[in-house]
Amino acid sequence: MTTTETTPAALTFDDKLRNYARLAVRVGLGVKPGQRVLVQAPVDTAPLARLVVREAYAAGASFVDVRWDDDDVVLARFELAPDGTFDTISQWRVDAELETANAGGAVIAIRATDPNLLGGVDQARVAAYQKALATYRRPYSQQVMTNRLNWNLISAPIPGWAQLMFPDASADMAVEQQWDAIFAATRADQPDPVALWEEHLAHLKRRRDVLTGKQYHALHFRGGETDLTVGLADDHIWGGGAADTPGGITFTANIPTEEVWTAPHRERVDGVVVSTKPLSYQGVLIDGIRIEFRDGRIVSATAKQGESALTRMIATDEGSHRLGEVALVPHSSPISRSGLFFFNTLYDENAASHIAIGSAYRFNVRGGVDMPLEDFLKAGGNDSLTHVDWMVGSDQIDVDGVAKDGTREPVMRAGEFLI
Amino acid sequence: MTTTETTPAALTFDDKLRNYARLAVRVGLGVKPGQRVLVQAPVDTAPLARLVVREAYAAGASFVDVRWDDDDVVLARFELAPDGTFDTISQWRVDAELETANAGGAVIAIRATDPNLLGGVDQARVAAYQKALATYRRPYSQQVMTNRLNWNLISAPIPGWAQLMFPDASADMAVEQQWDAIFAATRADQPDPVALWEEHLAHLKRRRDVLTGKQYHALHFRGGETDLTVGLADDHIWGGGAADTPGGITFTANIPTEEVWTAPHRERVDGVVVSTKPLSYQGVLIDGIRIEFRDGRIVSATAKQGESALTRMIATDEGSHRLGEVALVPHSSPISRSGLFFFNTLYDENAASHIAIGSAYRFNVRGGVDMPLEDFLKAGGNDSLTHVDWMVGSDQIDVDGVAKDGTREPVMRAGEFLI
Repeated sequence: MTTTETTPAALTFDDKLRNYARLAVRVGLGVKPGQRVLVQAPVDTAPLARLVVREAYAAGASFVDVRWDDDDVVLARFELAPDGTFDTISQWRVDAELETANAGGAVIAIRATDPNLLGGVDQARVAAYQKALATYRRPYSQQVMTNRLNWNLISAPIPGWAQLMFPDASADMAVEQQWDAIFAATRADQPDPVALWEEHLAHLKRRRDVLTGKQYHALHFRGGETDLTVGLADDHIWGGGAADTPGGITFTANIPTEEVWTAPHRERVDGVVVSTKPLSYQGVLIDGIRIEFRDGRIVSATAKQGESALTRMIATDEGSHRLGEVALVPHSSPISRSGLFFFNTLYDENAASHIAIGSAYRFNVRGGVDMPLEDFLKAGGNDSLTHVDWMVGSDQIDVDGVAKDGTREPVMRAGEFLI
Repeated sequence: MTTTETTPAALTFDDKLRNYARLAVRVGLGVKPGQRVLVQAPVDTAPLARLVVREAYAAGASFVDVRWDDDDVVLARFELAPDGTFDTISQWRVDAELETANAGGAVIAIRATDPNLLGGVDQARVAAYQKALATYRRPYSQQVMTNRLNWNLISAPIPGWAQLMFPDASADMAVEQQWDAIFAATRADQPDPVALWEEHLAHLKRRRDVLTGKQYHALHFRGGETDLTVGLADDHIWGGGAADTPGGITFTANIPTEEVWTAPHRERVDGVVVSTKPLSYQGVLIDGIRIEFRDGRIVSATAKQGESALTRMIATDEGSHRLGEVALVPHSSPISRSGLFFFNTLYDENAASHIAIGSAYRFNVRGGVDMPLEDFLKAGGNDSLTHVDWMVGSDQIDVDGVAKDGTREPVMRAGEFLI
């Protein structure tokens, strides 16, 4: 006896791209009917950005505009502009975000940049620019750090970046392979990724709720050269997966996302930690980071590659000498299992447990969104112009949860969750 | 006897593209060292826009930013956004121009759009949007109309447009042929286009100075169905080629430019005029225009194609019922001789004498830049939210200059200058 089985037809590239745009708009941004939407996108990602615009209208957006950017325009400035001009920022670019947020709108960014873009330019120029930009953007980034609006980050291949990820492939093939990697990591290559994401987000919610219930006084990371105790903020809340705005809009800020994370206590981080993956920071690759903390503050920081960029990052302000995030990601996460290094934090932070130098999210402390900054700091929250995640987890790393009385229980062993 | 002649090597596409960008920055925009520059560009023209950015820095710009736009994002809005939302404008987009102008900067726009883009969408939506946009942009467009800043328009192929110009060519070939047409019309295919432009601008300057000296009371267009008397504003000044900002920066607002033009008298236009070429207006092609004027005001307007767009344009405000520009272009101009129709006013207005419905340039009346609007209107200048050029010249059209006492002299015969 023979049967004729109907197998689902393989998805085409266009199917997957549309899946991805829909996922970003529906699950990521959670656009509500009548909302204004701002899309931020590199010009080289125009085909995806155009689909995101159309999906946002399909989800009921009242008005969608795109603030485009371009790596080469940025590079030209650092290469060619006169000295002393790098603290000038286009106010209108910054206002695009703020205008949308203030109108009750949503902001989605396609983050795609050549990780080596600024490797060859004067880092003092980049530092002056980044500091000015962070200052200009502060009224908006404070809204992001408190989840006052629904926002989302996704990514897309661009040629220079794709060739860094797949150095043996031709330019076109590298972009194709990077798309495959992105579609796989975001489940956009599956027929119904939105349903799969609902399952995934429910799983992350259970994990974060268990951890919030534990109220560990600290986490202890140990393995290889790392021996780091990360105190946790008072009344901390673990985040992971979806979140809600004060107005009740549910969104998922990062796609993909595999992490659960909370706020460290800014004065209770002690010991030594080494990075387990490179970090792509503002166009410079930083690798082999080794940092020592005492009473929450960085007392020494070295890197085997890109040390000056690391030093500059830490020098941003007082808050960039302390931690603003600690995140747990199983070593078996899909992105980790892919074996690919993306040179992009949105992806790489989902391949390993990580910590972030700089600002903490207000919603990681109970009542933190509405309390004065002073009280947030008192609870152990951190404040800075910057927030930079870097990877410290691997299958060599154990994590214990430590109670206030010193008793401890295993949270992760060899990079996998036990809870 | 034989000789070995050295002929200049043919310019490559990249050579011509660089020539074009340099021409736009040096001759068009006239960037001064230390000036901020805003580039406006469709994402599909990124290779040219990036060169313009680099040429602007090479000319001494202190900071160059790009405000990108995209036909498909515009189209998606008109197709998909809810009713009643089309008077919302991104303030930040408008502010980009104003912020640059207020900082003493220069603005260059690459104008490239599919002329049929909006042919299939609800024209009421387009009208609501265009009116809101013109209102938002008024503080900036007033600076343009008074030459307060150095500004420039150029163009570049984009696929939909190129295929409209060259319907028998493949998509790639059409773009290539459109580039050839643009390089030829702008002299960017010559080894030293900047020198050629200096000569050309000197020629236009002589022509405009002669016409300003004549101080005709009116111009009389006659040929075919056209029999139109265009009164000229009191103390009118002819423009053409380069101009100067109040701060003394010399620039050429349009590349290419073949026209000399001045301000009609808003109350002294009488007769009938028919268009000699189609007009691409906001994504709609208007052809076969026939308009009758009485005492400066339009009393009837029909078109064989796109009449509703024409009606909508004229309905913008009171000023859009009157003329704001009259321009003379010889029928033998290079763009006319190419025989190509560009579906783009920047080009097509340089192939034929033309008139513009709407606002007049303040600098086309002596002292007009600094006088109150009331006095400008009294001198015959016109004011409107809009300014739309359309072609009325051909080798069938004669133009007379008419003095106040009714004596007349020939200015153009069969489309060619006699003066």
